[in-house]
Amino acid sequence: MKAVRLHRYKEKPTIDEVDEPTVKGPWDIIVKVGAAGLCRTDLHIIEGQWEPIQHPKLPYTLGHENAGWVKAVGSAVTHVAVGDTVIMHPITSCGLCPACRIGNDSHCSSSTFPGLNVDGGMAEVMRTNARAVVKLDPSLQPRDIAALADAGITAYHAVRKASNLLRPGSHAVVIGAGGLGHIGIQALKAITAAEITVVDRSEGALELAREIGADHTLLAHDNDAVAKQVLAITGGGAHVVFDYVAEHGTEALSTRILRDSGSYYVIGYGGTVSLPTIEVISREINVVGNLVGTYNDLVELMTLTAQGKVKLHTKIYPLEAACDALDDLDHGRMVGRGILIP
Amino acid sequence: MKAVRLHRYKEKPTIDEVDEPTVKGPWDIIVKVGAAGLCRTDLHIIEGQWEPIQHPKLPYTLGHENAGWVKAVGSAVTHVAVGDTVIMHPITSCGLCPACRIGNDSHCSSSTFPGLNVDGGMAEVMRTNARAVVKLDPSLQPRDIAALADAGITAYHAVRKASNLLRPGSHAVVIGAGGLGHIGIQALKAITAAEITVVDRSEGALELAREIGADHTLLAHDNDAVAKQVLAITGGGAHVVFDYVAEHGTEALSTRILRDSGSYYVIGYGGTVSLPTIEVISREINVVGNLVGTYNDLVELMTLTAQGKVKLHTKIYPLEAACDALDDLDHGRMVGRGILIP
Amino acid sequence: MKAVRLHRYKEKPTIDEVDEPTVKGPWDIIVKVGAAGLCRTDLHIIEGQWEPIQHPKLPYTLGHENAGWVKAVGSAVTHVAVGDTVIMHPITSCGLCPACRIGNDSHCSSSTFPGLNVDGGMAEVMRTNARAVVKLDPSLQPRDIAALADAGITAYHAVRKASNLLRPGSHAVVIGAGGLGHIGIQALKAITAAEITVVDRSEGALELAREIGADHTLLAHDNDAVAKQVLAITGGGAHVVFDYVAEHGTEALSTRILRDSGSYYVIGYGGTVSLPTIEVISREINVVGNLVGTYNDLVELMTLTAQGKVKLHTKIYPLEAACDALDDLDHGRMVGRGILIP
Amino acid sequence: MKAVRLHRYKEKPTIDEVDEPTVKGPWDIIVKVGAAGLCRTDLHIIEGQWEPIQHPKLPYTLGHENAGWVKAVGSAVTHVAVGDTVIMHPITSCGLCPACRIGNDSHCSSSTFPGLNVDGGMAEVMRTNARAVVKLDPSLQPRDIAALADAGITAYHAVRKASNLLRPGSHAVVIGAGGLGHIGIQALKAITAAEITVVDRSEGALELAREIGADHTLLAHDNDAVAKQVLAITGGGAHVVFDYVAEHGTEALSTRILRDSGSYYVIGYGGTVSLPTIEVISREINVVGNLVGTYNDLVELMTLTAQGKVKLHTKIYPLEAACDALDDLDHGRMVGRGILIP
Repeated sequence: MKAVRLHRYKEKPTIDEVDEPTVKGPWDIIVKVGAAGLCRTDLHIIEGQWEPIQHPKLPYTLGHENAGWVKAVGSAVTHVAVGDTVIMHPITSCGLCPACRIGNDSHCSSSTFPGLNVDGGMAEVMRTNARAVVKLDPSLQPRDIAALADAGITAYHAVRKASNLLRPGSHAVVIGAGGLGHIGIQALKAITAAEITVVDRSEGALELAREIGADHTLLAHDNDAVAKQVLAITGGGAHVVFDYVAEHGTEALSTRILRDSGSYYVIGYGGTVSLPTIEVISREINVVGNLVGTYNDLVELMTLTAQGKVKLHTKIYPLEAACDALDDLDHGRMVGRGILIP
Repeated sequence: MKAVRLHRYKEKPTIDEVDEPTVKGPWDIIVKVGAAGLCRTDLHIIEGQWEPIQHPKLPYTLGHENAGWVKAVGSAVTHVAVGDTVIMHPITSCGLCPACRIGNDSHCSSSTFPGLNVDGGMAEVMRTNARAVVKLDPSLQPRDIAALADAGITAYHAVRKASNLLRPGSHAVVIGAGGLGHIGIQALKAITAAEITVVDRSEGALELAREIGADHTLLAHDNDAVAKQVLAITGGGAHVVFDYVAEHGTEALSTRILRDSGSYYVIGYGGTVSLPTIEVISREINVVGNLVGTYNDLVELMTLTAQGKVKLHTKIYPLEAACDALDDLDHGRMVGRGILIP
Repeated sequence: MKAVRLHRYKEKPTIDEVDEPTVKGPWDIIVKVGAAGLCRTDLHIIEGQWEPIQHPKLPYTLGHENAGWVKAVGSAVTHVAVGDTVIMHPITSCGLCPACRIGNDSHCSSSTFPGLNVDGGMAEVMRTNARAVVKLDPSLQPRDIAALADAGITAYHAVRKASNLLRPGSHAVVIGAGGLGHIGIQALKAITAAEITVVDRSEGALELAREIGADHTLLAHDNDAVAKQVLAITGGGAHVVFDYVAEHGTEALSTRILRDSGSYYVIGYGGTVSLPTIEVISREINVVGNLVGTYNDLVELMTLTAQGKVKLHTKIYPLEAACDALDDLDHGRMVGRGILIP
Repeated sequence: MKAVRLHRYKEKPTIDEVDEPTVKGPWDIIVKVGAAGLCRTDLHIIEGQWEPIQHPKLPYTLGHENAGWVKAVGSAVTHVAVGDTVIMHPITSCGLCPACRIGNDSHCSSSTFPGLNVDGGMAEVMRTNARAVVKLDPSLQPRDIAALADAGITAYHAVRKASNLLRPGSHAVVIGAGGLGHIGIQALKAITAAEITVVDRSEGALELAREIGADHTLLAHDNDAVAKQVLAITGGGAHVVFDYVAEHGTEALSTRILRDSGSYYVIGYGGTVSLPTIEVISREINVVGNLVGTYNDLVELMTLTAQGKVKLHTKIYPLEAACDALDDLDHGRMVGRGILIP
């Protein structure tokens, strides 16, 4: 079968012919890939940023955002059957460790992360496990929902965690209305009554933000000006800032525009949070980390999508065009989320 | 009456003869001071660190940690009477703003903070308001509990906020077992079943920590060594780190010894938290600010004290010896919390 | 001034000429009443049902759901001024008791409840206190929002408390889509993504329910049939049932249609909950009481109203027609909430 | 092997010679039973009370509270090995259903409950599954901890759920200080600072209660007298009542001794909760169901036991004496929890 394989860091992946994965353990599931989402993390993987955290054995197949149809199952699997349409949580969790036991499966201590540390889904077929699959209505098309498997649940996870802080009358500020941010905004509309202010460098992104529910939009240019505007709109600062960028200065902006007792939800990465402790304590503010969402987040997000409350904007490429797609992503030529179709 | 007054920053306060405060508004309460606690914050005030935050009008009377007996009440006050023994929450909150309405009164938008922005309690008599006083059993002596009014509730507040994270089997690490930390340790024992590891630079402080319930104690010397020991004791990192120091490198140590999904509770101040966002998100860790406790925290802490679960270690000085006491505090010659008696 | 006064239980109130109330304490506020809502509780008061709970001294003025304009204020009041448009929380709370200190002011231990135990707002002028008033935009008309002061916050309070249980994919069942229920449905839409099933005996009420967001509506006739339909719609039972009736058999229906771990929120009254303890434990279900909302609930509900997310359906009467309005309410001739205008 | 088998309801079980269970699926674990706890539920099973809920196929082996050593494992099991000491959660959960995904595994939709609906552990060997076993330190003896597997976690589960309601200064009332109650009291001491009042009909049980931490004990005789005493001790009623009896009138007593906003935690069963809805809403009280604890509860309770914070009182019988033990339990001749040793 064809697969998008990374052979060396800082070099483009290649489309290789490799053996199809097969069932190895009783808990395994083999999936015919219907669609594989492209992610800025794929660029970071190629650059080598994730090597010290995930250290995969090269070469390996990229792709951590996948949906498709069950092709084979291990001896212990009974909850899905060959032919079922499934979307896959990116992590193959164990169901036995303390993190799994409380539904915090993205911190499973005995997992794989296909596409990051083992072969992923930019291929015709991939291997996952019983705990990773969400069975879907057969009418759903993998290409339409694959991007929820990673981008979607990461964006949603942060909103879900913060929802208790966002009572009617509270202010949420979303920084970055791109692939993740535009899902975060829709999630905020769906599960809170917070007033939403969106900050982005692109007028096009802000226009999309307004269409999907932003109450206020601000073109990011100068942090001083943006901070002043946010403080005015929010009457003294945001209750929660969702930072889908978290580099190039949004870290400093984010804590500056919090009100007392407010929380800074970090979702993007690349920059550094730097805060004097007197500011942390005198304003009693919080910095909250957000990894990819949990399996339950994925189930909930599929529900919101089925209800029409969350919609994805995508751009389709054939699997063979993976490098073109990565190039488009890298150079800002991609509108919406890129999706590879094997 | 006598009062400890600050005339100029970076100069010692003086013991002045001033007029007694009187009832000005219907909500005012005048208290004959029984005891006034000394705090490292008093040193910081004298240095001028709080000027840009609280900007008091000099000269003014120090002292934000007080207990005594009601001397006079305003026309709207009915819940306490002249002669009642009271401990005072440091903030005179309004009871009407959004923060007060949810019990978050330390963020009251219409308050005074006696000792920080108006005349405080290092004096024979002080003014506070109806919402600040907790009526006590007349058998209680102000000198024995005054330090709970600020040091106590600050230490307790953080523990109380974190208590939901500290299920049996979880690990709490306390950095700094001094005036605040030794109350934090006792609070942890009283309201959680967490295993407690205490880190301090003083062997004496660690000995006290063991007496009041620490399960493990570590002498702070080298961050690498301490981090290694904490990771071994906790089996992979703390669920919560309480940093009662938050300067001189404890900020970096604290985030390093967190396990995934762990939380760093900042209570001390002086240093800077600096965290790459990729670390914040990949480990999904949190930084949580902690200001002085709320009125409810003070009530709960008085209960724990009455139950014998929290005990204060104090050193008594006459009010006139305020400068000696400040000197002792500044030069590490004070064991326990310093208390001035008018 | 004119006031609707109750002289004897089980007799109609009369429109009397009485003295206007005046400021008595420093915390008092006198309000020129703009609108007073009518409530089924007023019928229950007249019947004598609340006598053993509130024991007012007869005769007294009815009316516990009011909005208007500030006419005079006590010496301690500074946050509102004469002429301000205000809506009044029904309870004049103290701000000092444990319940008030955590924002649970509807359980204040030192309060009055105008219209239930002291003179209320079916009059030209009424007395309330500083902690009860929410200052409004002057463009708002008391007649348009008065019913939020009691019916609104009672309906909202239950939804707010349950909102953490109502993640995307969960099922809420609302029993009774009348004065309270129709606000509850709108609140559910505004702050949750739960799927909503509404049960009512009136086809008109169900039509309104559909207009304001119900996903499924069921005409209540036979409990067996309704239960079967709800179990089918919800895939095994509701996560939360909101019972705005709580008499005439809805109590038994409600617990029957819960799924395991589900919660029965009781808001209406008149009936009796009767549950074998083996059912309570083997299904691990909960019964949750709901009183009138808090001051914060009122503030949040005013926000949802300003955002257009909650709308009231009302019928206007002059104050002098209070008995006609009570008659209409008693005989099911009132569509929406009845409002008296002095 | 020998096993205690129930052949017909309302008849004593018999000690039969049967085949040992074997591994059937990849997720199965076979355990050599070290100890099997006896439970009042076993009496209820024999009486037929659980037939309509669990409908086991007779004859079958009783015993739902077990610990022992791993004897064989299925092909998918890697986290425990033959010879490991284990305690077993009573339910073999699936790890895939919505309840399991949030750690609410006692509501697993695809489980067995050995001893209730399939063969249990009053035998030399039993079958369980991978998700049910907690690996223990080899120094632990099954006979010393088996009773934590059901009685223990049921008692603890309720306390754990209520712990957020039990801040310092709050009042917990425990009704019934027997097999479950005496663990509940110790759990309350371990994880809360609540003041504990215990009500029981046995002076011996109250003496044990005082030894393990009860602050107040009341001999149950007359509900009026007990209610009056509890209201005096608690200053107006309990914040939480834990009813480990829930029959013979404790249901009515429990709701009567709640303060406003209080919660009645039902753990025992046999009686009926009957509450007028006006009482539910005007006092805003709650009734909370409690089933057996979760796997996480078991892990936490094992921690508290290892820390010496929870201790079991037991009485040992050989497996062959099962009927004698059941008789002793039925006739109140058993002090502490009965344990069968194969």
